[in-house]
Amino acid sequence: MTKSNPGNFFEDFRPGQTIAHATPRTLTEADAALNIALTGSRYALYSADSFAQNCGLPGAPIDPLLVFHTVFGKTVPDISLNAVANLGYAEGRFLAPVYPGDTLNAVSEVLGVKQNSNGKTGVVTVRTDGFNQDGLPVLTYVRWVMVNKRDETATVEFAPPQTPSPFVPPVQLVLPMGINFSNYDFTLAGSPHTFEDYEVGEKIDHVDGMTVEEAEHQIATRLYQNTAKVHFDAFGQHNSRFGKRLIYGGVAISIARALSFNGLANAQIMLGINGGRHVNPLFAGDTLYAWSEVIAKEDLGDVGALRLRLVALKNQPSSSFYYKTEIGEYCEPVVLDFDYWAAIPKRNGTRALP
Amino acid sequence: MTKSNPGNFFEDFRPGQTIAHATPRTLTEADAALNIALTGSRYALYSADSFAQNCGLPGAPIDPLLVFHTVFGKTVPDISLNAVANLGYAEGRFLAPVYPGDTLNAVSEVLGVKQNSNGKTGVVTVRTDGFNQDGLPVLTYVRWVMVNKRDETATVEFAPPQTPSPFVPPVQLVLPMGINFSNYDFTLAGSPHTFEDYEVGEKIDHVDGMTVEEAEHQIATRLYQNTAKVHFDAFGQHNSRFGKRLIYGGVAISIARALSFNGLANAQIMLGINGGRHVNPLFAGDTLYAWSEVIAKEDLGDVGALRLRLVALKNQPSSSFYYKTEIGEYCEPVVLDFDYWAAIPKRNGTRALP
Amino acid sequence: MTKSNPGNFFEDFRPGQTIAHATPRTLTEADAALNIALTGSRYALYSADSFAQNCGLPGAPIDPLLVFHTVFGKTVPDISLNAVANLGYAEGRFLAPVYPGDTLNAVSEVLGVKQNSNGKTGVVTVRTDGFNQDGLPVLTYVRWVMVNKRDETATVEFAPPQTPSPFVPPVQLVLPMGINFSNYDFTLAGSPHTFEDYEVGEKIDHVDGMTVEEAEHQIATRLYQNTAKVHFDAFGQHNSRFGKRLIYGGVAISIARALSFNGLANAQIMLGINGGRHVNPLFAGDTLYAWSEVIAKEDLGDVGALRLRLVALKNQPSSSFYYKTEIGEYCEPVVLDFDYWAAIPKRNGTRALP
Repeated sequence: MTKSNPGNFFEDFRPGQTIAHATPRTLTEADAALNIALTGSRYALYSADSFAQNCGLPGAPIDPLLVFHTVFGKTVPDISLNAVANLGYAEGRFLAPVYPGDTLNAVSEVLGVKQNSNGKTGVVTVRTDGFNQDGLPVLTYVRWVMVNKRDETATVEFAPPQTPSPFVPPVQLVLPMGINFSNYDFTLAGSPHTFEDYEVGEKIDHVDGMTVEEAEHQIATRLYQNTAKVHFDAFGQHNSRFGKRLIYGGVAISIARALSFNGLANAQIMLGINGGRHVNPLFAGDTLYAWSEVIAKEDLGDVGALRLRLVALKNQPSSSFYYKTEIGEYCEPVVLDFDYWAAIPKRNGTRALP
Repeated sequence: MTKSNPGNFFEDFRPGQTIAHATPRTLTEADAALNIALTGSRYALYSADSFAQNCGLPGAPIDPLLVFHTVFGKTVPDISLNAVANLGYAEGRFLAPVYPGDTLNAVSEVLGVKQNSNGKTGVVTVRTDGFNQDGLPVLTYVRWVMVNKRDETATVEFAPPQTPSPFVPPVQLVLPMGINFSNYDFTLAGSPHTFEDYEVGEKIDHVDGMTVEEAEHQIATRLYQNTAKVHFDAFGQHNSRFGKRLIYGGVAISIARALSFNGLANAQIMLGINGGRHVNPLFAGDTLYAWSEVIAKEDLGDVGALRLRLVALKNQPSSSFYYKTEIGEYCEPVVLDFDYWAAIPKRNGTRALP
Repeated sequence: MTKSNPGNFFEDFRPGQTIAHATPRTLTEADAALNIALTGSRYALYSADSFAQNCGLPGAPIDPLLVFHTVFGKTVPDISLNAVANLGYAEGRFLAPVYPGDTLNAVSEVLGVKQNSNGKTGVVTVRTDGFNQDGLPVLTYVRWVMVNKRDETATVEFAPPQTPSPFVPPVQLVLPMGINFSNYDFTLAGSPHTFEDYEVGEKIDHVDGMTVEEAEHQIATRLYQNTAKVHFDAFGQHNSRFGKRLIYGGVAISIARALSFNGLANAQIMLGINGGRHVNPLFAGDTLYAWSEVIAKEDLGDVGALRLRLVALKNQPSSSFYYKTEIGEYCEPVVLDFDYWAAIPKRNGTRALP
């Protein structure tokens, strides 16, 4: 029997099945620094202990997207080693902040399976939960992925999942314990704009561009201990559809979110992931640009929440606001369509603005 | 109104104006490790807690140049987002060591503005101060930069700055609190040469070469949270003067300083920056070499200080000692002309050399 | 006299000579994170404090290979600055775990010298010992290297070293203090296979491939403060034998070992290095694959030890199991032949497997 992991194939997944994933990982200040070095993120709450303490936290938490990538990475050997495509995310919620020194592990439950009509592949839908060293949940999300069958003749139960919610209801969003923006420093945060300043339908051009190199996405993706071979094996990819390495979609999410600082500096805390799709592949040498649209606003009491569509484009400045064609198809430069909730200070309830 | 930052243009700067910069940053052991990984620095005081403790410090401080780049990076969105060229530095002093866990922020004061005769640009001179989480100054320096006007017809007050000092007077240099070389270990430091061994006028070939890759300078520059788009946006740079990304000048400073270990291993502590000019652009794929000249020596009592000219060359071995032509122009391979003070142990006052 | 280090030449080495190397280095959580980011390692004991604590340790130790590269890097300026080739390792033993915050230094003793018949070079054999800040040995190994003579006419004593042991006797292996696999979590570790499951002669295909970029091996090698110029100076290498930068052999070892997780996830703790040879050069752009063979098994009581041959191939999938030709020469794709001992849990003495 081979001792290396062949991964699960479509017919190996059964609704209700629970899979505990390998390689718990202690995230540290080093992961936080590498996250800044690899994405260019500048959100003050995740850059400075003093800023976080001024907001009622014990210190700077780990960037929620780094938590997401770490948890996601653990699932790859069990869920998507034989995947054809990563189709999307939904129902994502960050349930507790993760601090340097915390150790994460991950468990997935299969929510549904649906064979494709070609008989060769099927869609697996899982809910993945991330836990810290105390067993407390820090993240939950649903993901669906197209997976190859090992044996095309295998018959598979028809057990499609429930349709995921189109977005996370604001009432389900969880703010980091202790967060308090009453003493928020807008100058150090880098923008005067509060919850009140954003309007539904408003589009924001994040202006800057970021070119991604092979070494950068490989270093990031290994940091997440995500081992999907399409990201790393240039020799093996020569004969693939694209002929080269594909960049892990999470790299595009994190860089686009980092770019969005320029216009959304105070929308610091990602609370939920309503949906996410990797629309077109990203390759080394491509330059990412990003723009955002305010989809909804929700007053959470002491803070506000913005529901934001974050769109990443490749080799096409964001001032174009490219998105979909008239017939509803994604424009070619669009690589990412990401829908999330972020907490942002309100003007009242914070100290006077300059 | 756009919510993304358009940056300041030349006519936005007024002498006496004070600008508090965004994104405080906690520097940690991770930044120290990344600094080693990205520059190759080997100065013992910044590599080992035990060595630093043996020199009277609580542990290894953060490399002063990493402090400089971090503070400098914060100023970019306010000072040089619309810059044409970074013209130089002067009057730089490191006022207190920064240790892992310290959080830095930065404030700049406009010292002067001087429009260029073309009416399209002007030179802005600022003094920038970096502070730690206790509000104590850790770094101060003057910088001048050529900035575009938003509106060529705008009239701007003629308010040139005072000419900066040609060098920092030794009496203004500040040694790290507690530093004591009486137990200095020359073997672990990597060189037997003390203050007494260096002569004014002496030139040192640092021998080794270091090729810089796109991924490396991008990772370093993001670590400093420096967002100047010329360093990152390959797509946008296609139509620029050089047609490609420019490497942040601070990367050249740090690599040249790391190379200078080979010949200056005991000149460990950068105390002041007398002046610095980025003479020619550096691009990915270029190989850096460096040589130094001892410009002056100053006996600070228990320790000595060397005033050093650090010259970085690209694609030209440092044994050439290339610098300026007969008519005083920089030779083409010169990318950096950097003038600084460094503390170095004296022979008397340290334990016997082997 | 030049103040830069010319390195030692063959005639500078004398049997019995002891060399204390420069630049002590404090390894931290950042080095551990960078090790993961640069190699893709997923061994649970080195990824998660909680997993390590569950195995009786105070927290996750530093990966033994990172300890090896750090100690090795210190020796380069004294031993191999003028080396023609790094010929091999033997008699390597990890004597105590290294934890974040520990500071390493290194001392070498010359075991023997043997001039080559061409009169231009010779083989120097050294034993290198790595110590922590308390002076406790953490690593010892023997290495031999071919070094240029400064002066071809210099006469050198004929003083060849004793032949190193072909492998480290199991009785000399040292387990990390406190290690205890009685509560070992095979799910989190990523594999159900114990000591008992592996058979002598068994070959394991590690399946995955990893392409190495210039930026990656340079960042790794600088992290180890290894300054050998062949790894960094593209300009200087234009006229070398290969015309380009060579990747430090340690990078190949660490990546191959990281790949071997897929099939050897529980063989977590490298205890000894029986031998190692860099058989063919590795260059940026090459894709590494790896396979292992179980050479021997040793019951150490509460745990087992596997003696493993780790073979790394370039641009040749590991399912080929390429090794040597019929006449005993290494096949061209082989870049590394590495022979080591690793500790692995036994089935009895651990909690019930799922």
